[in-house]
Order: sequence, then structure tokens, then C-alpha cells
Amino acid sequence: MGLATKPRAIVFDTFGSVVDWRASLIADLSAHGAARGIAADWALLVDEWRAAYHPSMDRVRRGELPWTKLDALHRASLDRLIEIQGIAGLTEADRRHINLGWHRLKPWPDAVAGLTRLKRHFIIGPLSNGNVSLLLEMAKNAGIPWDMIFGSDLFGHFKPDPETYLGVARLLDLEPGQVMMAAAHNNDLAAARRAGLMTAFWPRPGEYGPRQKQDYAADQPWDVVARDIEDLASQLGA
Amino acid sequence: MGLATKPRAIVFDTFGSVVDWRASLIADLSAHGAARGIAADWALLVDEWRAAYHPSMDRVRRGELPWTKLDALHRASLDRLIEIQGIAGLTEADRRHINLGWHRLKPWPDAVAGLTRLKRHFIIGPLSNGNVSLLLEMAKNAGIPWDMIFGSDLFGHFKPDPETYLGVARLLDLEPGQVMMAAAHNNDLAAARRAGLMTAFWPRPGEYGPRQKQDYAADQPWDVVARDIEDLASQLGA
Repeated sequence: MGLATKPRAIVFDTFGSVVDWRASLIADLSAHGAARGIAADWALLVDEWRAAYHPSMDRVRRGELPWTKLDALHRASLDRLIEIQGIAGLTEADRRHINLGWHRLKPWPDAVAGLTRLKRHFIIGPLSNGNVSLLLEMAKNAGIPWDMIFGSDLFGHFKPDPETYLGVARLLDLEPGQVMMAAAHNNDLAAARRAGLMTAFWPRPGEYGPRQKQDYAADQPWDVVARDIEDLASQLGA
Repeated sequence: MGLATKPRAIVFDTFGSVVDWRASLIADLSAHGAARGIAADWALLVDEWRAAYHPSMDRVRRGELPWTKLDALHRASLDRLIEIQGIAGLTEADRRHINLGWHRLKPWPDAVAGLTRLKRHFIIGPLSNGNVSLLLEMAKNAGIPWDMIFGSDLFGHFKPDPETYLGVARLLDLEPGQVMMAAAHNNDLAAARRAGLMTAFWPRPGEYGPRQKQDYAADQPWDVVARDIEDLASQLGA
């Protein structure tokens, strides 16, 4: 453990880093489709839905859309993909249920155990592009013991905008260097480091399934490089 | 239990309703004064400090001050009262320690048990004039199991401004009528009801010590009137 000083708070990227969005959504949508007798390539829908994630936030970042919660961006992308993929028979209630699948994502096996250990020593919270309601319902469904929910709607900005990382420090009355960003994504950590935060990485090589192209390993010397969140807890003495 | 429908989320007034600010601060400051060999009427300081609370927030509400976190309003009032009361020998470190006494307030005996029961059925959080960092440190010190911290700095408004009650509903993607405000203060509940929230009351007749003048009982037919937070949990089936 080579850290000179430990953080006071650790904030976590959520989609992919704490929860397995891909396997969760494929299982959730497949079960719903089976129950409703609706045929679709649910894995393709999930992969294309996630592929629409960054472009949809970029529209907000460029000012083409006013501030929009991720739930609403997800819904617009979902409606478009249902058209493109020709999935027939989905009612408004089905679409609402599917869209809230992001509120029902399941944690990776190490996540709740590691976060429970870390919570005894540090302030912990998600710092996610998800909105507060999404992250809060996810936490309650999955038993994730956050101290505070840092949804992007608190800041009116999506990561990697610096307003998000610095907004956490401001709300906690901490210096940026007393806050650690923890994620399975190198680009998130690079932006957090530019804002002055500490950084921790672990890989989730299965996050994107066959579409995974990056983030197999740390691409900078982050403050902590761990195997997973349990290992992060061990390296931080928690 | 005469509620036609139950809330999805319950937000709690904190100072006085969940934590016993007066006994906590008198004990905390007396111990610090004894350890530092500094003589003062700590109970008087605490009572006058609390008496400065509403006037200090009113200065923000009237626009005489820009948005200011409660920690900073508390500090300004503390410095003024130390002068007025002629308390000698307090260093900057002492003043910072004393001011953070609000982060170390202790819960009433029923609070953590009642909130732990309620958390299994409802989203729970403080909706307080305290800032996020104050409420979060209080929760970690005292083991209060909030799902989310609704500090006044999330809204840039103090209660009873409607932006606070409606801000909770907005962040949770709920209708105001799906959110219950829970407090030992009738005026807080009156403002919450005007904003469309459900309401729950229990008395804390010892809150202000000998200065208590009101809130011995419900002064309107609130949706729930309870003995304490454990009884609120029982009445809500939690």
C-alpha cells in the first residue's frame, strides 16, 4: 500500500465498475420478453442501447439538448432502437419497465462486500452519470450501502465534466485531493486526476461482452490499482 | 393506521426531530471546555447559538447574504456569541472543533431503531437545513442508515422554502404526494403540506430544555401523529 495519505471519501463509477449492466439487462429483458411473449434479440438491444449512451450525453454536453436526466436519455434511445430493430408489441408499460431495468442492475460479486468494508473507514458514494433516483433504487434493490448518492442531476453535468468531480468535493467540504475516484474505466480516472482527485482502478474485462475493446488494465499509474473492490478495500486497510 | 396510501419516501427533519442537539452540544462543549481548561456557561452558549439559527437563515432568505451553508452561518453566530459572552482563550482550532459539534449530534433513543425499520420499506433521508457534509458526518458518527442525504445545499434554499420539499420529489422522480415529511415541528409540516407532501409528527418536548414553548402536540391533523420514530414505523407497518 504505497499511498502517502488516504482519502476521506471514495466515489465510484457505477455502470460497469460496481454493477454488471450487460448481464443484468440481458437477463432482465429476456425474462420480461418471455413473460410477455415478445420476440427480440435482447442482447443486441442491450449492446446497441449502451452504444447510444455516450452519444446521447454528448448532445447535452454540446448544448443540443437542455440538461436531461439519464433515465430520459435512455428512454429516447430505447424508443429509437425498438423502431430500428423492429421489435413489435411493446406497450408503454413494457417500455417503462424495460427502461427502469437500469434501476435493477446487479452488482459484481465483490462489490457489496468490498463497499461494506470500505464504508467503515471512508465516506462512500456513487459518482455516476445516472440520476439520483436511478442510483438510489439500484442501491435499495441490490443492498449497496452508499453513504450519499452523487447523481449527475445534482450537478447538471455528466462525467467527465470537471463539475462532477469538483462538485463532490464541494458538497463534502473536502479538497479534491481528499477524494478518490474509483472506476474500471481509465478515461473517467484521467478526468478525475485532472480535477485533482486521487484515483483507483480495477478491471472488468467482461463488462462489454464480445464488444469489450479497452480497460483491460490500468493505462496510467493510478494511485491504487486493484483486482476488484474487495482488493481495493484490502489495499486501503479496510 | 388510517392512511389511504403509503408514501414511497419519507424525509426527516433532523435537528430536534432525529437528534438531540441541545443535550449533545452541551455535553460536547462542556467536555471540550474541561479538557482545555476554559470556563464558560456552555448551556447558555448552546441555547443562544440555537436562538441565532432562524435569524441567520432569514438573512439568506431575504437576500442580505448570498447562499451560505449552515456550517458557515453557525460559525459566524458562534464567533459573535463568544464575544458577547466574554468566553476567553478559545483558539481557531477550538472554534472549529466547537462548530463541528453539529456534525457529532446524538440521536434520540428511538431514532436509529425506527429508521432502520422504515428503511426496509421506504426511501429515507434527512431533509434538513444542515449541509450535506454536516448531515453525512452526523450519520456516520451516529449510525443513522439514510439512503440519501438531502442537505439544504442541494437546493440552495432553507426550509420552509418550497424549493426544498419539491426538490426532494424532483430528485426522486416522485409526485409531492408520494413523499412524506416527518418532523417534531408543526411549522415544518405546515410548509410541507402546502407543497403537497404527506406529513408525520411526533413530539420532542425536551428539545429546547427550559426554553421549549411549542410543538408539544400536533396542531393540525397530520397524516400520521406518532409517539416517536419507532411508533411511526409501527403505524406505517414497518
